[in-house]
Amino acid sequence: MHLFYQPAAVEYLTEDDSRHAIKTLRLQIGDDIAVTDGHGNRHLAVISTVDSRRCSFRITDTQTTVPRPFSVRICVAPTKNLDRIEWFVEKAVEIGVERISFFFGQHSERRVLKLERLEKIAVAAMKQSLQSFLPRLDEALPFGELLKTSIEEQRFIAHLPTDEPPINLAKRATVNGQYSVLIGPEGDFSDKEIQQAVAAGFQMVTLGSNRLRTETAALTACQLLNFLNV
Amino acid sequence: MHLFYQPAAVEYLTEDDSRHAIKTLRLQIGDDIAVTDGHGNRHLAVISTVDSRRCSFRITDTQTTVPRPFSVRICVAPTKNLDRIEWFVEKAVEIGVERISFFFGQHSERRVLKLERLEKIAVAAMKQSLQSFLPRLDEALPFGELLKTSIEEQRFIAHLPTDEPPINLAKRATVNGQYSVLIGPEGDFSDKEIQQAVAAGFQMVTLGSNRLRTETAALTACQLLNFLNV
Repeated sequence: MHLFYQPAAVEYLTEDDSRHAIKTLRLQIGDDIAVTDGHGNRHLAVISTVDSRRCSFRITDTQTTVPRPFSVRICVAPTKNLDRIEWFVEKAVEIGVERISFFFGQHSERRVLKLERLEKIAVAAMKQSLQSFLPRLDEALPFGELLKTSIEEQRFIAHLPTDEPPINLAKRATVNGQYSVLIGPEGDFSDKEIQQAVAAGFQMVTLGSNRLRTETAALTACQLLNFLNV
Repeated sequence: MHLFYQPAAVEYLTEDDSRHAIKTLRLQIGDDIAVTDGHGNRHLAVISTVDSRRCSFRITDTQTTVPRPFSVRICVAPTKNLDRIEWFVEKAVEIGVERISFFFGQHSERRVLKLERLEKIAVAAMKQSLQSFLPRLDEALPFGELLKTSIEEQRFIAHLPTDEPPINLAKRATVNGQYSVLIGPEGDFSDKEIQQAVAAGFQMVTLGSNRLRTETAALTACQLLNFLNV
């Protein structure tokens, strides 16, 4: 069954989804569809008007999913090459993430990030993976501002400490937590940023012994916290 | 320091790497480089002739890495869209994998796969992540032929069993194993293929509750087995 996304409490599809339903899929009155609101509800519905700009449906049943008992927030510096961060958003949404926040660090090469395309990728990945929750994406903030928004109880910064043996995120994090992980840009965090993060209660962790690209590190942190809670 | 790849026991760079070293990086006689053989050895060396087709070096020291105490082999049906499988190869090599094998299943849309480009991606990812082992990539085989090559002690097929509760790969696999995991094409395995795999000793496992794309499932299996052995 085709899955659509309508975040508002209305019984018609968005303009994009209406066009897709009517022009591409050629759905007809009476056809069954599913519509998620991105907040945990999936409606089973039937098409009631064939309109490629505003396709109406009638809800016949609603299935509600409860949120996971843990939450994963990945805070990442956007990569210079946009493809790489788009890829990260797609994959993180597929495997499961609650929130993705962006920041510009001292060593960030990229200083502009538009969320619109990333939001579309997130919606497509939510539909693709048959989920009912749309993760939250946050506009990029300067690093210092981002730290102020990180109030999760388990906070980590992916960085190799110089004066103590590295500890893997898998060993530091505990199950059923509210997690926040900071992933630096290609040029890594500056010393000052690391000091700021540690002062704000972030624990230094590694994600393994290999040097990972920014987007690989971000996805690995997300995978690892999901697995910890399997 | 710049890392190069020379699988042969010779003291000069490959033609590609020679051009990169001399034309792009403009290295000079006496400059320090590192050269990995992809079999666990990393040589520290100095440039001894500036030749953009055959740049010689002199080894000053060799560091040998031991293989991991476990091995991960991912057997995956190539995706219709080549970008997706290229992405998987890059990411799997970065995070750590011993072998990637390809197969064509009954529901595979893609029926041709050239390894040359994937091998270049694997070499670049090995260098990028500062590893000394180059994972093995196998030419695509028909599914039945692939099964005959899978003699690892812990064999899994990512598929939801219909008549018993799904068990996550994290619960089935045990540490320090030799693992092989089968990941189906976009159209999934056929019933016959699943029967063949089960008859060949593969255990059915899930990779979580979300429906994952082929390349996401392949990377997730790889991540999960790596984490199990952290």
